[in-house]
Amino acid sequence: MTSDERSAKRWIIGKPLPTEQLEGELLPKRVALPIFASDALSSVAYGPQEMFLILTIGGLAMLANAPYVAIAVMLLIAIVVAGNLQTVKAYPSGGGDYEVAHRNLGPRAGLVVASALLIDYVLTVAVSVASGVDNIISAFPQLDPFRVELAVGFIVVLAAVNLRGVRESGRAFAIPTYLFIASVVVLIVTGLVQTLTGDAPVAASAQYSVETDALGQAAIMLLLLRAFASGCSALTGIEAISNGVPAFRRPKVRNARITLVLLGVVSMSLFAGITFLGLVSRIHYAEDPCDLNGFANCETTPQQSVIGQLGAAVFGDGSPLFYVLLAATALVLLLAANTAFNGFPLLGSVLADHGFAPKALRTRGDRLVYSNGVIVLALGAVLLIVLTQANLNQLIQMYIIGVFVSFSFGQAGMVVHWLRIKRDPRRRGEFNPAAFAVNVVGAIATATVLVVVTVTKFTHGAYLVFLIGPVLWLLMWGIARYYGRVRREIEPDEHTVFGAQGDHAIVLVGDLTKPVLKALDYAIAAKHDSLEAVHSAIDVDAAKRLKKAWIRQGIRVPLRILPSPYRDVSQPVIDHLAERRAEHGSEVVTVYMPKYVMGHWWERVLHDHKSRRVRQRLALTHGVAVALVPWRLQSARLLEERESRPLPGDARRGTARRPRPVTRQHHSGHRR
Amino acid sequence: MTSDERSAKRWIIGKPLPTEQLEGELLPKRVALPIFASDALSSVAYGPQEMFLILTIGGLAMLANAPYVAIAVMLLIAIVVAGNLQTVKAYPSGGGDYEVAHRNLGPRAGLVVASALLIDYVLTVAVSVASGVDNIISAFPQLDPFRVELAVGFIVVLAAVNLRGVRESGRAFAIPTYLFIASVVVLIVTGLVQTLTGDAPVAASAQYSVETDALGQAAIMLLLLRAFASGCSALTGIEAISNGVPAFRRPKVRNARITLVLLGVVSMSLFAGITFLGLVSRIHYAEDPCDLNGFANCETTPQQSVIGQLGAAVFGDGSPLFYVLLAATALVLLLAANTAFNGFPLLGSVLADHGFAPKALRTRGDRLVYSNGVIVLALGAVLLIVLTQANLNQLIQMYIIGVFVSFSFGQAGMVVHWLRIKRDPRRRGEFNPAAFAVNVVGAIATATVLVVVTVTKFTHGAYLVFLIGPVLWLLMWGIARYYGRVRREIEPDEHTVFGAQGDHAIVLVGDLTKPVLKALDYAIAAKHDSLEAVHSAIDVDAAKRLKKAWIRQGIRVPLRILPSPYRDVSQPVIDHLAERRAEHGSEVVTVYMPKYVMGHWWERVLHDHKSRRVRQRLALTHGVAVALVPWRLQSARLLEERESRPLPGDARRGTARRPRPVTRQHHSGHRR
Repeated sequence: MTSDERSAKRWIIGKPLPTEQLEGELLPKRVALPIFASDALSSVAYGPQEMFLILTIGGLAMLANAPYVAIAVMLLIAIVVAGNLQTVKAYPSGGGDYEVAHRNLGPRAGLVVASALLIDYVLTVAVSVASGVDNIISAFPQLDPFRVELAVGFIVVLAAVNLRGVRESGRAFAIPTYLFIASVVVLIVTGLVQTLTGDAPVAASAQYSVETDALGQAAIMLLLLRAFASGCSALTGIEAISNGVPAFRRPKVRNARITLVLLGVVSMSLFAGITFLGLVSRIHYAEDPCDLNGFANCETTPQQSVIGQLGAAVFGDGSPLFYVLLAATALVLLLAANTAFNGFPLLGSVLADHGFAPKALRTRGDRLVYSNGVIVLALGAVLLIVLTQANLNQLIQMYIIGVFVSFSFGQAGMVVHWLRIKRDPRRRGEFNPAAFAVNVVGAIATATVLVVVTVTKFTHGAYLVFLIGPVLWLLMWGIARYYGRVRREIEPDEHTVFGAQGDHAIVLVGDLTKPVLKALDYAIAAKHDSLEAVHSAIDVDAAKRLKKAWIRQGIRVPLRILPSPYRDVSQPVIDHLAERRAEHGSEVVTVYMPKYVMGHWWERVLHDHKSRRVRQRLALTHGVAVALVPWRLQSARLLEERESRPLPGDARRGTARRPRPVTRQHHSGHRR
Repeated sequence: MTSDERSAKRWIIGKPLPTEQLEGELLPKRVALPIFASDALSSVAYGPQEMFLILTIGGLAMLANAPYVAIAVMLLIAIVVAGNLQTVKAYPSGGGDYEVAHRNLGPRAGLVVASALLIDYVLTVAVSVASGVDNIISAFPQLDPFRVELAVGFIVVLAAVNLRGVRESGRAFAIPTYLFIASVVVLIVTGLVQTLTGDAPVAASAQYSVETDALGQAAIMLLLLRAFASGCSALTGIEAISNGVPAFRRPKVRNARITLVLLGVVSMSLFAGITFLGLVSRIHYAEDPCDLNGFANCETTPQQSVIGQLGAAVFGDGSPLFYVLLAATALVLLLAANTAFNGFPLLGSVLADHGFAPKALRTRGDRLVYSNGVIVLALGAVLLIVLTQANLNQLIQMYIIGVFVSFSFGQAGMVVHWLRIKRDPRRRGEFNPAAFAVNVVGAIATATVLVVVTVTKFTHGAYLVFLIGPVLWLLMWGIARYYGRVRREIEPDEHTVFGAQGDHAIVLVGDLTKPVLKALDYAIAAKHDSLEAVHSAIDVDAAKRLKKAWIRQGIRVPLRILPSPYRDVSQPVIDHLAERRAEHGSEVVTVYMPKYVMGHWWERVLHDHKSRRVRQRLALTHGVAVALVPWRLQSARLLEERESRPLPGDARRGTARRPRPVTRQHHSGHRR
């Protein structure tokens, strides 16, 4: 990680807290809100803008409908929040909609939610970064030519930061998120006051007119639906909290629900406020600036984001507050992108628990696995950014399908959940009609929206989601089937008895080195019935030299030189074992080999292939166990440092691992 | 590998012989010639063509100089062959020029040769394939639009074939190579006869004229040198034999030298013949067909290759022999490309022996390593093809620098070799003045040509070689330094004694499965002083269930459940070991773990990460050896099949490995 990246990291993530401080960290509401809300809140930065954009396609007159669309969106936010309140209560384990669907609608439905969410994580990164860059450019238009480069750059930094391993620190999230909320509130209030005092803000784009041919009823209806669908992008991220319950301070559920309500209220008011100001200041935001009559050289100049235009209109273009607003917006959007990097491994581990994803995703701290996840996520987002040239409007078209798949399945699942309770005589008491009603409404509403979103966006790019989704689904289903097969293969029955006997040990000697001597030493300590050192003589002279050195070193264990006419290490050993078996009958043979422990990935390229290969070949041989005696090269120290680094998703799942005393063990063990 | 690829493979490489037949195969001359000569001979397919092309830049008049240039090239061939005859005799181990330079001029010089050769392997693939495609297109001009696609396609097929593992079978090489020699000889003889009988062949391009402004002396001189430099591409591949001596039948050296002489004679006569016919039939071949006045729509139509034009002129366009000639040419060129895929691992293993390349390259049968080599080679070649749009003329500009670096260093090395013998009183008798003279001439000649080639080609693309070469050199030098460091780190001295004691064994139990039971069984058989089964209770209920199952299964070894508050497998075990050490003092602990053996690469993704991680963590712990008890999943069978597949380069280094009786061992061991 270069120093630039590190400074960038400081800037994005803030100084990571030392592990001790995070020890067992569970999040108080004031910290949880920013961590889980940045995604949901940041989406008001593009939600209203997309709504305006779509309406404007039908001409400026259509903007009159904005309030109704906005109200519909806010209503939906309320419904989804209410529905999620039930989910949090019923399934506090952090599985969220996936778990609800999985438990109540069956694994197949659960997987649908899972694949939808996986896709949406990629889109969250792409959309948030694109919008973040868009707002940066609204502050510094001269950056417009580097839109794609900037977006890709940010994704790369985020990936680097998460590859290196950075715990989401509440503090780092709190500042930008609260700054964002504060500055938008100030914006709205100021604008409101100005309006009431008769000096309403006027957007720079108010002057532009738009020509469009009159639309038929149907077209208008469709356009309204599309506007609504795009506005719904403001709902993304609400699901985050129901996935993060375990990370809250006790009482977890209560705190999570309070945070959820707060989140709902805040994002509704921000959405309402921005829409209101947008209308008052007569913002005209078009799909393509060239549709705006009077927009000077529209090919080259970008449109200022809605937030940007409002900031300019209310605070005055270039005023300090204007820059604060846009900085906070950009920052919170980048944080939202970062949440995807934390959410992904979280979902992964839940999927792994259910056997739909590689078990390794469940193993905390298998850095390799997380790295792969981070890289896949980043590559996907970069691909989208490049394909769409970081065009927010195009990205939004693919977005939120996933979110609404997850919402509707989750709510439907809750409905089934209640029905089951109702039917179950023992639990009937728990049945809560009001909550049931909420989930029914939630299910119907979100399902309807899902249909609307799909219909209105399908041809505009959403079809991609419907191509990739099933592929992911099949992949995960296949994994589950594979694990099932293996489970059956290794399941023991009452008469599974091996009853091996005999105890012979062999030390493989390539050359007379400390690691080999250590391996030999361990073999001696294990006091096997019989022990011999064995060398495959690939080079006859080398073998002779080894024999001499063996004697010089005064080793009592006999060294057997095996001829290796085919320059192969393992085969002579295997043959030797076969001969032994012919004499002594079946016996368990422990083959001791030194194993190098090293710190750099590239050292693996330079080491140990031969012994790895020998190991593989021996693993195919009858009655052999391979005992690896570790030898730590100096570089091995690096491993420990890496050990102690946090992994993405830790904060959200409320599992901070204890710093391990490896170093002590390492050094004592180093030159034994 | 798809069936198309397989059929393509049949077509390129011919039906691979079953391993038994190849057992210990050493090559008789008649088989060695085609295997080692395809590269060298095929280069006469483009050598003369490039010579004509460069001369034509100076106008058709310049063609009059072709004979002199050709004679210079042939002379050089003779010199290089003579020089290599000495190398083969003095260094029969197959190290070739690299070894000569390494031994006599020092490792640094050796590495220069090595990096030069590595680069040339990539270029051999690119140039040969490009030229092969060029000749295919000469037969079927309608394929011209797909030039690049065809070339890339062939490289992919070659890579696939070599990844899968195909032994170069002499027979498969013999047919096309001899067919090529035969058809070119027939071409030359027929053309000769026609000329003598007054009915000289006339090339289709004879009619075209070329306009050029008169050149100054200097320019003419430079052009002649450039033509010579391009003609020298006919020398590539001669070094192959000195690298392949070990593969010859006894008397190896004698046979290798005879083959070398044959090779020299054949390629000289082919070069001479083609040049002669080219002049007689007045072939006009330009850098860009549009330079040829009268060449119809030159933007779209390709020029016919020189071989193609001669075939058309002598045999008649579209005549059976014409197609045979071009087919043989294309085929032998593709074989030449394939030789690079075999030469690379060979050089790699020599470099690895000297510690300049990953040791793994020395380990026969580490398929992974060869695969990487093959992939790198293929990617490099594809890159070149795409960058140059498979333009042979551009590729030739980068080519042969490497070859001549290797030639000149090799010859210079031989000179030093002789001088040393001369100085050494005991060996003075071996000194051979004639041979010495040959190498002196060889050194001077090749060095001069190297300078000429560099000067004339540098700006035309050769500079790339001078960029990449040093990088490779530094890389290999760095590797050597790293190995040196490690060697010093692990070198034992007389008082290296470990003297570990105590013998405790632990069986890690995740779940009660057959693999675990097998591991337990082995641990019991090894009769350790103390033995316990250990389970890290990540999930308390699961631990309870395990405890029950343990008793139900009637296992006598005590099962210890370790609490794991942080959902981590290894840490509790490590802590447990630490406690034990506190009580029992330092002791060697053998930790038994089952290890899954599987056949598909993707299974690795789904398995074993956790245990791998546990292994890594334990390897950092004091006094622990990890005993892996293999459990073979059904898919493990695939490994054996792969085992028995041959590896690239085997035939050339004369090391056929014996087919192993793994299957038997496997099955007996499978359900032990």
